[in-house]
Amino acid sequence: MYNPLLLPDLRVMLDEQDEAAMAEFCVALHPAVASEVLEGLESKEVWQVLQNCDWERRSEIFRYLPLTFQIELVQNVDRETLSKLIEVMVPDDRVDLLERLDSEHVEDVLPLIAQAERSDIRKLLSYEEDSAGSIMTTEYASLPEEISVRESLDQLRQQAPDRETIYYVYVVDEGRRLRGFISLRDLILAKPDTPISDVMERDVISVRVDDDQEFVARELAKYDFIAIPVVDNQNQLVGIVTHDDALDVVQEEATEDAHRLGAVEPLEDSYLETPLLTLAWKRGIWLVLLLVAAFATAYVLKQYEDVSTEFHWMILFIPLVLASGGNAGSQSATLVIRTLAIEEMSRRETIKIAKREFLLALMLGGGLMVLGGGWAVCFDSITPMRAFVVGLTVFLVVLFGAFIGAMLPMGFRKLGMDPALMSNPLIAALVDVLGVFIYYNVALALIAT
Amino acid sequence: MYNPLLLPDLRVMLDEQDEAAMAEFCVALHPAVASEVLEGLESKEVWQVLQNCDWERRSEIFRYLPLTFQIELVQNVDRETLSKLIEVMVPDDRVDLLERLDSEHVEDVLPLIAQAERSDIRKLLSYEEDSAGSIMTTEYASLPEEISVRESLDQLRQQAPDRETIYYVYVVDEGRRLRGFISLRDLILAKPDTPISDVMERDVISVRVDDDQEFVARELAKYDFIAIPVVDNQNQLVGIVTHDDALDVVQEEATEDAHRLGAVEPLEDSYLETPLLTLAWKRGIWLVLLLVAAFATAYVLKQYEDVSTEFHWMILFIPLVLASGGNAGSQSATLVIRTLAIEEMSRRETIKIAKREFLLALMLGGGLMVLGGGWAVCFDSITPMRAFVVGLTVFLVVLFGAFIGAMLPMGFRKLGMDPALMSNPLIAALVDVLGVFIYYNVALALIAT
Repeated sequence: MYNPLLLPDLRVMLDEQDEAAMAEFCVALHPAVASEVLEGLESKEVWQVLQNCDWERRSEIFRYLPLTFQIELVQNVDRETLSKLIEVMVPDDRVDLLERLDSEHVEDVLPLIAQAERSDIRKLLSYEEDSAGSIMTTEYASLPEEISVRESLDQLRQQAPDRETIYYVYVVDEGRRLRGFISLRDLILAKPDTPISDVMERDVISVRVDDDQEFVARELAKYDFIAIPVVDNQNQLVGIVTHDDALDVVQEEATEDAHRLGAVEPLEDSYLETPLLTLAWKRGIWLVLLLVAAFATAYVLKQYEDVSTEFHWMILFIPLVLASGGNAGSQSATLVIRTLAIEEMSRRETIKIAKREFLLALMLGGGLMVLGGGWAVCFDSITPMRAFVVGLTVFLVVLFGAFIGAMLPMGFRKLGMDPALMSNPLIAALVDVLGVFIYYNVALALIAT
Repeated sequence: MYNPLLLPDLRVMLDEQDEAAMAEFCVALHPAVASEVLEGLESKEVWQVLQNCDWERRSEIFRYLPLTFQIELVQNVDRETLSKLIEVMVPDDRVDLLERLDSEHVEDVLPLIAQAERSDIRKLLSYEEDSAGSIMTTEYASLPEEISVRESLDQLRQQAPDRETIYYVYVVDEGRRLRGFISLRDLILAKPDTPISDVMERDVISVRVDDDQEFVARELAKYDFIAIPVVDNQNQLVGIVTHDDALDVVQEEATEDAHRLGAVEPLEDSYLETPLLTLAWKRGIWLVLLLVAAFATAYVLKQYEDVSTEFHWMILFIPLVLASGGNAGSQSATLVIRTLAIEEMSRRETIKIAKREFLLALMLGGGLMVLGGGWAVCFDSITPMRAFVVGLTVFLVVLFGAFIGAMLPMGFRKLGMDPALMSNPLIAALVDVLGVFIYYNVALALIAT
């Protein structure tokens, strides 16, 4: 989000090389706000402003910039500055950035980074995209089992400056296996001499490092946690995912689903930051696929060319019957896809959905049949029989549309694919092919014979 | 989310009236998990299980149940139990519940609730739906300005048991006006004798009680806060909104947008909990509206009845040209609506979007024109000129579709309406009317003369 409010002031500071004022700008504002103002500057100018504050603040402001702008900045700075910046950035943010850089660029910079940080980076980079490992941070607070509450608080004070959160603390054994959990709230309420193992929660809810980020966000949301621990196959604690990352995941996944539903391949960056050609590609592939489907409809229509010459009135209602089916299908698909996005679905619930969609399709199809048929009669040249053909077709098309719309996304999920691939336009396209077929056959059955 | 894993065990406990085991069930599991299992029982049985634990635990488990089930449970219990439950529930959750009950039922129960709680409830109930006030909790941790860090920690220990969070602490003056903010992390790192006013952050980021919940969630996400303070017109602190509520808002708004985009009136409850008739209504009203639009298309088609008798081949491509425009329009609308959902849009950005959509429409329309026209030639009886009519129409329809799809949502936003009202099917319907008009006029211009 770009915030032009303070930009003129900042430009004056830059023109006058007013370092004191720029230093003040960096520390006085919340880093999230400072970053919004900096978005209005050129890369070079951003670095000029940022060099007036310490590295920690610099990285704090930097991390709030949009990823595309971060990449641009990184490409306009020397290796030394970049390596220092990466060293001070928090683990999950720097990995997000490095994942987006050319691997050459990364290999160029990594040797300049301190050994400990470097191996942390390599490890986080190795986790699969969209896994818990890819969004977690390694800067969590942890304690050994054997100490007292008083000692715990002392240790936490030491850990506090470079941990993402100290409000949730994880207790681990010598092998870093997760043994327990305690919140800072419980810690400051506990008697100082109690052993930590007496007050900690032993039944720790955790996720696995290869769990999908959507699942992680769902777990975190379910328990209202500030953070959730991430463990590997040996139950060793390897990181935590914090509430702010979960919120980002939820936003990201909702956007991805919305885009898919609208027949756009999901974008990596925000709409406004995505280059025009990328957008054209992500939309174009779907439009072409849908065009192919539309040609299928044209071919089916061609099979009934003789019929439509004879029953010329039928043309009027082609868009209407096709749209009715597509609309009902879009509705079903949207409801099912969104439900699948929010919760896991059991077999029992799948059956329940199929039943509901069938009943709904009967009701909605019936209603539209009456309205559609009834209104069609008002057209010149439309006899009640012809109107009945339209009505019955609407009914059947809605029935099939809703069924396809509800069942295909669930089928996709079952095959391990994204249910949201079943976009509204794709459903409409499938229903179009089927709709033409139904329309002409209903007409042939009711009138021609 | 329903979790049948432990249900058989729980049924055995109920059959055997094994109170000790039920008490164990209530405390051993995380309340979120216990609630998932309880979802499989009847109301009466749930109360039987819950009465084996203390009120605090009972309300904890209760709050994790789906709202529709909470309502069912509340209707199957005596006034005394209900009033006690409401007394111990956390403020934001109980208000969510009470908002959904009949006002008679509420008025019946309120007198039994302790005075302090009752006025808190009345106040929270008075805030508008979807405002900061409607999702905030009044159980925040606060401190006076004049005390030391040591005293602050002592006071926090006392407040801890009944505050939603003590990790963010707000400093207020005698008039409860918000003066400062300090995190528990900074508090335990500060020297015990420092006055709190020396270590607190004075520039507190807050929201207003009548701000929209979407804005609140966005602010919280922007700053990665655990909670954000809510103030009234006099800058008096009235509550906080916590990270978990923000996450719920984000999910809720994303679902609402997705439903709107799929032409379903947003549901109050989850899809599976919504009664069938409600669903039929929320879908039906849109289907009827879209049917009206489809009749407009039929009327336009009727105006060109003579042309389509003469140019009979045109029928084949009616679904194709209409779908192309609808698809491009759905894409634009989806991208714009989702962008509007995530960030505020400045005037500069609105213009940028209009430009991008125009360029994209030219590119995509051009591409589809070549493909569509080229492929149309392969049909029998389609001369190059006829194929050109199809291609040119596709181009124009995509151009208008993308334009309508991008501009109407922004216009809706400007008028203070939900941009997502511009659903994919509605855009398709508008493009249909226009598309028929364009198709026949292109044909008349290029061929008939």
